[in-house]
Amino acid sequence: MAAEKPLVSVTCTAPTNIAVIKYWGKRDEKLILPINSSLSVTLHQNQLKTTTTAAISRDFKEDRIWLNGKEEDVGHHRLQSCLREIRRLARKRRSGSDGDLVPLSYKVHIASVNDFPTAAGLASSAAGYACLVYTLAQLYGVESELSEVARQGSGSACRSMFGGFVQWHMGERPDGKDSIAQQVAPESHWPELRVLVLVVSAERKPVSSTSGMQTSVETSSLLKFRAESVVPGRMAEMARCIKERDFEAFGQLTMKDSNQFHATCLDTFPPICYLNDTSRQIISLVHCFNAYYGKTKVAYTFDAGPNAVIFTLEETVDEFVAVIKQVFPPEMNGDKFLKGLPVEPVELSEEVKSALPMEPFPGGIRYIITTQVGPGPQVLEEPQRQLLGPDGLPKPVS
Amino acid sequence: MAAEKPLVSVTCTAPTNIAVIKYWGKRDEKLILPINSSLSVTLHQNQLKTTTTAAISRDFKEDRIWLNGKEEDVGHHRLQSCLREIRRLARKRRSGSDGDLVPLSYKVHIASVNDFPTAAGLASSAAGYACLVYTLAQLYGVESELSEVARQGSGSACRSMFGGFVQWHMGERPDGKDSIAQQVAPESHWPELRVLVLVVSAERKPVSSTSGMQTSVETSSLLKFRAESVVPGRMAEMARCIKERDFEAFGQLTMKDSNQFHATCLDTFPPICYLNDTSRQIISLVHCFNAYYGKTKVAYTFDAGPNAVIFTLEETVDEFVAVIKQVFPPEMNGDKFLKGLPVEPVELSEEVKSALPMEPFPGGIRYIITTQVGPGPQVLEEPQRQLLGPDGLPKPVS
Repeated sequence: MAAEKPLVSVTCTAPTNIAVIKYWGKRDEKLILPINSSLSVTLHQNQLKTTTTAAISRDFKEDRIWLNGKEEDVGHHRLQSCLREIRRLARKRRSGSDGDLVPLSYKVHIASVNDFPTAAGLASSAAGYACLVYTLAQLYGVESELSEVARQGSGSACRSMFGGFVQWHMGERPDGKDSIAQQVAPESHWPELRVLVLVVSAERKPVSSTSGMQTSVETSSLLKFRAESVVPGRMAEMARCIKERDFEAFGQLTMKDSNQFHATCLDTFPPICYLNDTSRQIISLVHCFNAYYGKTKVAYTFDAGPNAVIFTLEETVDEFVAVIKQVFPPEMNGDKFLKGLPVEPVELSEEVKSALPMEPFPGGIRYIITTQVGPGPQVLEEPQRQLLGPDGLPKPVS
Repeated sequence: MAAEKPLVSVTCTAPTNIAVIKYWGKRDEKLILPINSSLSVTLHQNQLKTTTTAAISRDFKEDRIWLNGKEEDVGHHRLQSCLREIRRLARKRRSGSDGDLVPLSYKVHIASVNDFPTAAGLASSAAGYACLVYTLAQLYGVESELSEVARQGSGSACRSMFGGFVQWHMGERPDGKDSIAQQVAPESHWPELRVLVLVVSAERKPVSSTSGMQTSVETSSLLKFRAESVVPGRMAEMARCIKERDFEAFGQLTMKDSNQFHATCLDTFPPICYLNDTSRQIISLVHCFNAYYGKTKVAYTFDAGPNAVIFTLEETVDEFVAVIKQVFPPEMNGDKFLKGLPVEPVELSEEVKSALPMEPFPGGIRYIITTQVGPGPQVLEEPQRQLLGPDGLPKPVS
């Protein structure tokens, strides 16, 4: 009886990512194969991350999963795809001999928590599935192509398997073996780059991206054209912008690709509108600010919701945050409006103020998370950060 | 001395039109040649029209024009294009002999008034240039291809030269001689069709369509694709829908084409967003209402602004107006909320009400103009409706 080792567990964290060349539309719903390649920036886990503990034990009766402390159905098909794939890879690797490795027949318990503000509208499923797959791979000693497994949990999760700047090749094979993520540049490549998440007050829950992209593929002729004829050139151009740290071109292409993604949503029938009036005001503000300086100092991108993600360089963060506070005066107490990396208060010049052609919209932005490019998934060694106790059940939230 | 006939004048009215296959983008800015064909419905002049009086006299010292009672610069290049073209056609027609016709060397005075609510955001320039060209043609006895002349004033004006359902062929010739409008079906063809203009409270003046479409042509790859590969098929399909009075297909294609036009605006750089949150709520409401009935009973289209134009059939008008009043409770006194054709109050069933998934937005819609398909430009015979007095100056506004 292995009384001294009743439970083996691993705890890891994984990041979310924000696409600068957007993924929208699958050519295979089950394997999650996209109709175009995409490219993203991995956000730093100091500000936004998922933590997952996976444990196996001879005593576990069944596979179980807890998300943010609440037990969920482990039978969910995307979750099952990831579990099955990791166990298959583990079996293949061992070729019959178990050695010191954990037995594949044991059941697994999984606990996962996001530290994302729920309203942030960031792709928590990307971080979630990346973390799940990375943690299970650590537990079972699997080292092969993990992005392909994460992709089957949530398409954009494959890009969260790497830090820095990451491209997801759409691939060509029907079995998806070549639809994988690859690092374009590491997180250390462009240290001045900063990311601001502007969390907007949304009036309603938008269309889910899974059902939205399916309708787009079925109804939008512009999406088909974009995927086939626009994205390939943009992928190459975006990789060049990143490699050369060309913020002017990086920012412009990021904004254009976000706009084109939302254009294809509007061309969907019935149309999908993720941008609201506050999103549109942020878009105008960014173009105004850049026009004032005669160059691209800030760039926006929007995913399947009204929140803006702003790219800028370190030198511009303080001023642009002051501009945001000028146009969207915070309605809560000032301390909570700014989260993440420190931002210094700046007095805007009258010249800048008069270049912003808009009335203030108090409360239009709820808060800002300031972050930067970050690394890929990490193993946590500290036992106190494990999410499952010695009994294999989630620890009480402290 | 022709003392008995010091001034010869003609007064006409012309309609506006609303495109169901949208025109956006010129291949020739000066001649106003479009990058794609378009198709529109002429709105009835009982609700919305321009009236123009043009007069000539030996005593006039120069060409002059008054718009809505205010004198404007007659040197405006589009106005000059129309004047020059009409005079050229008149000269050509007369081939040397003036007969009873008015002398071409005399100067012209023009007065024009719109009865459009300024906030309606309807293409008053379409009605305005159509009326100008039609009136001048009457004055000078010109009968040839007038839509080609009106087009040079404002592109969509060429479609206002006819009643009913009108297509504007983009043409192929560099001189624009084949870029002309043509009636698809007369105003009597589909008597049940009704049009509701929903005037939305706009927070700001949108980008002008002239500059907007120029930027779109320069920057949107989706617009190019739409013009070349989508619109030709849609023109043929829309003509079929109209000929067969197939409201289901007419409504769906109208909505899809409006959405695709706005998609290309969003794909423009910097992006153009004509739709605001109220526009988006109207879009959702229309899809909800149609989903409730399991068929397309109402359809929206939006031009370069946030106001919706709704197509529906006579039998649905009263109920849909009641739905609008339910979701957008009028903030003004009830009498002024409804303009145009009479609408009967309807008590909505609880079932319909609960199918509308939205909270009420009081004041989101300022008022509704109910109208229908109407005829092309008309000559007014009544002297009291002339806009210029015997002295050739605008009559005081009564």
